[in-house]
Parts: sequence; C-alpha cells; structure tokens
Amino acid sequence: MLIRPFPVSDEETPLRQKNAGLRLPVISPTTDTVLDLAVQQRLGRSDMPEQALGRLESLVLQLARIQKAGAFDFDMLAFDSPQLVVFAGDHGIADEGVSLFAQEVTRQRVLNMLQGSATVNALAELHGFELTVVDAGVASHIVPPEGALSRAPLQRRKIGHATRNMVLSPAMSVPQAVAALHAGMDVVKHLPGNVLALGDVGVGSTSCAALLLSRLCGVPLADACGRGSGLDETQLQHKLDKLFAAATRHRRATTPLDALAAMGGFEIAMMAGAMLQAASERRVVLVDGFVAGAAALVARGLAPAVAGYMVFTHRSAEPGHRLLLIHLQYQPLLDMELRMGHGVGALLAWPLLLSAQRLLEH
Amino acid sequence: MLIRPFPVSDEETPLRQKNAGLRLPVISPTTDTVLDLAVQQRLGRSDMPEQALGRLESLVLQLARIQKAGAFDFDMLAFDSPQLVVFAGDHGIADEGVSLFAQEVTRQRVLNMLQGSATVNALAELHGFELTVVDAGVASHIVPPEGALSRAPLQRRKIGHATRNMVLSPAMSVPQAVAALHAGMDVVKHLPGNVLALGDVGVGSTSCAALLLSRLCGVPLADACGRGSGLDETQLQHKLDKLFAAATRHRRATTPLDALAAMGGFEIAMMAGAMLQAASERRVVLVDGFVAGAAALVARGLAPAVAGYMVFTHRSAEPGHRLLLIHLQYQPLLDMELRMGHGVGALLAWPLLLSAQRLLEH
Repeated sequence: MLIRPFPVSDEETPLRQKNAGLRLPVISPTTDTVLDLAVQQRLGRSDMPEQALGRLESLVLQLARIQKAGAFDFDMLAFDSPQLVVFAGDHGIADEGVSLFAQEVTRQRVLNMLQGSATVNALAELHGFELTVVDAGVASHIVPPEGALSRAPLQRRKIGHATRNMVLSPAMSVPQAVAALHAGMDVVKHLPGNVLALGDVGVGSTSCAALLLSRLCGVPLADACGRGSGLDETQLQHKLDKLFAAATRHRRATTPLDALAAMGGFEIAMMAGAMLQAASERRVVLVDGFVAGAAALVARGLAPAVAGYMVFTHRSAEPGHRLLLIHLQYQPLLDMELRMGHGVGALLAWPLLLSAQRLLEH
Repeated sequence: MLIRPFPVSDEETPLRQKNAGLRLPVISPTTDTVLDLAVQQRLGRSDMPEQALGRLESLVLQLARIQKAGAFDFDMLAFDSPQLVVFAGDHGIADEGVSLFAQEVTRQRVLNMLQGSATVNALAELHGFELTVVDAGVASHIVPPEGALSRAPLQRRKIGHATRNMVLSPAMSVPQAVAALHAGMDVVKHLPGNVLALGDVGVGSTSCAALLLSRLCGVPLADACGRGSGLDETQLQHKLDKLFAAATRHRRATTPLDALAAMGGFEIAMMAGAMLQAASERRVVLVDGFVAGAAALVARGLAPAVAGYMVFTHRSAEPGHRLLLIHLQYQPLLDMELRMGHGVGALLAWPLLLSAQRLLEH
C-alpha cells in the first residue's frame, strides 16, 4: 500500500454523512513547498523579468503538485489518455418555466453527442479527448444509436427519471444523492488516464447551480441567478421567484450533502463524485462552467483537499459563475463568455496545459 | 489582377507620408454583412441558447471575414504554414535606466532564440509555428550559431545599432522609420502561409510602447507607463520622469509616422510594416503583447483597414496594455498576466483559432 502524506482520516467525516452511508475516497493534499521552489527555479531565467510567464507559472506549479512523484525527483509533466465525461440529468424545476427549453431538449442534446454531431464532439476529437456520456437521470429513456452511428459510449447510471420539482419537495432524497456521488466515483474508477474533464447537460441546471452557490457560499440569490438559456427580464424575474421559493422551502439544508439532495441534480451529484475520485487518484480535474463549478463547490464541501486537483478552465457568461470563482479565489484560464456546459470550455482551455507541460520540460 | 472591393485609394494617403516616400500596400476592408449572417446561421443551433459559444463566435466571424473567398461560398477556414516572426531592436533610452536589464541582454535573448533554448522555441515547436528572427536594430553585431546549433534563421535588416536616446533626440529619422516599415513589409512578402504571429525583443521597448500609446490614443503617460522588466516604485517614478521628458521634447510628433520616428523603435516600425503587408495579403495577424500592440496602433494609424486582420491574442501584466486594448475596443483571447513579448502570448492563444476553425467546419 502507498504511504500517503497527511491522509484525511475517516474520523473527520461528519456524522451525518456517515449515517447516510457516504464513503469518501482519501485525497492527499497537494501542497509541497520544496517542490514549489524547485519548479520556480526551473521556470525562472536570469535574462527575463520575474514571473515572466505570469499565470502560466501558477498553472505549471499546480500541475507539478498534482503529479509530483517525490519532492526532489521532478522534471516533467505526463498527460495520459485525457477523458471527457459528460453527465446528463433532468430537473423537475423545469416544470416551473425556469428555462426556455423543454426537458425533451436534454435527450436531444445527449443523442447529438452520442451521434457525434454536437460541438463537444468536434472539440474532443480535435484535442484528443475520449468522450463518455453518462445518463445520470434524464427524464426519458435514451436509445443510443447503433453500430457505425454511435460515436461515444453511453453509460446508464440513471438514479431517477429527472429530479423532483424542488419548489415542491427536495430534488432527491439523501440516499439518492449518496448513490449518485458513488456512481460518479465508480465511473471514474473504470476510466483510464490521468486527466479528467467534466461536462454537464440538462435543462434547468443553472437553477440548481445558483441555489447551491447561494447556499454554500452565502451569495445572495439575486446575484447568483442568471439568464441561463437566454431568459428576458420578465422570465428572469420569474426564475428568481421560483428559486426564492425553493431556497425558502429548503432553508434547513445547509450541509453540502443536504443542499445537494434538496437543490442539486443527479448530474451535479455524479460530477462531484467523479471529482472526488479523480483527485484521490491524483488525476488533473478540468472543471468546466457554472454547473460543473457548483459540483466543485459540493465536492470541496465534502473533502476540501479536492480543490488542489481542480483546474477551473473558463468563466462563463452566467453572472453567478463569476461569483463562484471569486469565492474559490481562482482565476480561470479562459473568459470566453460561453453560454453552454458540455465540457466545451474545458476542451478550449486544454492546450494551455499542453503549453505548461512543454515549458517545464524545456 | 484581383478586383478588390473598396480599395483604399492612393489619394487617401496623407501628404506627409507621401513625401517621406512611404509606400503603403492596399488593404481591403473585411466587413461583409452577408457573410456574417451566413456564419451566424451556421454556428447557431436550435437546441442551444443564442451566442452559446460566446466570444468564440466573434473569433470565428473575424477569421471567416479575413479568409472569405466569396460571400456565398464559404464553409471552412484554412490555416497554412503559420509563421512567427520576432523582431529584435535596441533602444537608446535604455541608457537612462528605464529597465533593469542592460542592452546586452537583447543580444543574449536573440542568441537563445537562434539556438532554440528560449521559451518561444519550445512553444513554436509545440504549436507548429516556423520561427524567423529579424535583427531590426540590435545594438551589437549578432553572430548566429552555425550548422546544427542553429534552430531558427536570422534575417539581417538592421536599420541602426540601437535607436538614439529619445530623451535627447528623435529615436530615428523619418526616413529610417520608413525604411523599417518597408523592411517589415518585405520580410512578410517572402514568407509562406496565411497566419502571421508577431513578437518582439528589445530592452527598453515598453518605454516606446507607453509613449506611443499616450501620443496616439491620448492616454495620460502616468497610466501608460508600467514596471516593464520589474521596476520598483522608485525606479518606476524614474522611468516616468524620463518618458515625460521624451514626450515633451517630441510634442510636435503627432502623426503615426512622426510619433513612430520620434519615440518608437526599429522593431516596432518593422512589426507595423509586417502587419500592413500581412493584411494586404489577407493573412491572419496574431498580435502579441504591449509592444506588438503599440506597433498595431501605428499600423492602424497608417491604414485603419488593417485592424480587421488583427487578432489580439492576450493581455499582458503591463497596465498600459489594458488601456491600449480598451482603446481598440478589443477583448483579447487570453489574460495570462505575461511579462514578456517574443510572441509567447500569440502562441499560447493559437489553439483557440484551431478550435474556431473546427467549429465552422463541424
């Protein structure tokens, strides 16, 4: 068995989580001041200003910390079989008219990905990522294309046919949330490689992200709530009213797990589980947009050490995403004002990690 | 001969530039509303929010405009033999202690590039750019490495052994500025490909960039002047004093050409010429940091249509660069807080153009 520094002991897991049967993997902290110094010395050059490479140096440092083999034996980064996993889930709150799209659109988007006709397929191919789509809880049954028409595998991990409408009841039960977290861990366990990009698809998901951001970071709901699918002013106000109603109903759901169950989504829970497992295996975790960011908040709430493994790849056009990143004190790699999840932003940012790798080797 | 829409007629060239013997290439405007509509329709999807790809859509649009073959016959972007040209020049104002580095460092940085040991070599190789280094006016004679040690060609286009100290006299004469502009055009004429990234190297160059920004955009010098090589508070104040002295001496140099001659640099003039030539050949021009940005200001002052061909690849840590980009109303692709030129930022951003290309083909 590997000896890991500072293991997070099982005793630290809060009682409530234990009772709910949640099993968290052990995640090693990444901080290592000796390594930091070695990397900084390697990047520095006498004929250039200090910090000449700016935030790229921080990225090299983070990647080196994640991949460190030993403090004094470090001179390269190795990326192996990068994976993109897109988790799909539907949200009962879509019944309240918080999105311009019907739930049916989730299924259509998933089918596009499976057939290779979505934006994310083109970018995954360009940047050498293997794509897996996971049905975490799409409302309808998905019949994947057969044979030559199938361009990406579908994993069936459906926890339910959409979450419940969280304005009226918790989105899911705590055991369902735990099952989704475990399923996300299990998905990652069976994937190769040491780089994991996580995407999401699901109509209504920015409502969950806004609620989780508000609850877990203390951000006012009015600031966390954005236009999502492209709502106009009246529709935005309507969405905000519904989110207020949900937040009020679930005002006692204050722990990460309870908040996730009451106001999250199946795909968000699975993403959080995937992040935790990936970090425990020292994989680089590429976090995509606002919804993936909300999953990152949940994962961080359950096991703070996971944060060291997360590279926040971009800032989306959703105003809540900006606040989320400020709260995490993380400057993302890109700011392209994307209005989509699916892992697209993570793929766009990926070449910066290749450049970082090259700089350390150089 | 190709028929170009809306050619910039020779009559529009200001008299002064004519007298100085400056020959500007004809640059076609890139605006084409029919093409814009076609591209937007192609990128839009009924199952996604509007503008789902955010600023990436603007990038696709700009690239499509640059490469358009005909308004109705457009369905792909083609990038061919991307080139990186790094222009090297020394600055007489370095004598005034405006940089932490001595002029000798310019030669050393150029030698590193020629030997393949600079950061830019590693990134050029990674991203498939051919590197050419141009001696636009380094203070000392450069003896390039021979045979197998040489990793990049050196073009000898020296206009002078460093510019003059612009606190005491114009940095160069107007005929020298014109010669440098023409040399930059000539360099590009003999390079293959339709993508041109431009970098710069030269101790003291941010002083020129700050002065040009201040003069050509009306930005107060105190806001345009930054720490460059890493000056402390006292050194920054000293630099600012020197820049004030130079700006006062050359207060009559208000046209782009006159400002370039009085307060520019040989490498800045050549970069501006290279940009103009590249645009006239419908190449994509990747503009790097603050100093390349100053060259872009000069080029735009000489021929406004050049702006349509410029992709501003990143925002550097120099505060003046932020103001420069605001003035140009251009949001750069990256914001990595780099403190170096050399074209490094342009190379880091390049994969975003590849992603944009892929999205249009898709």
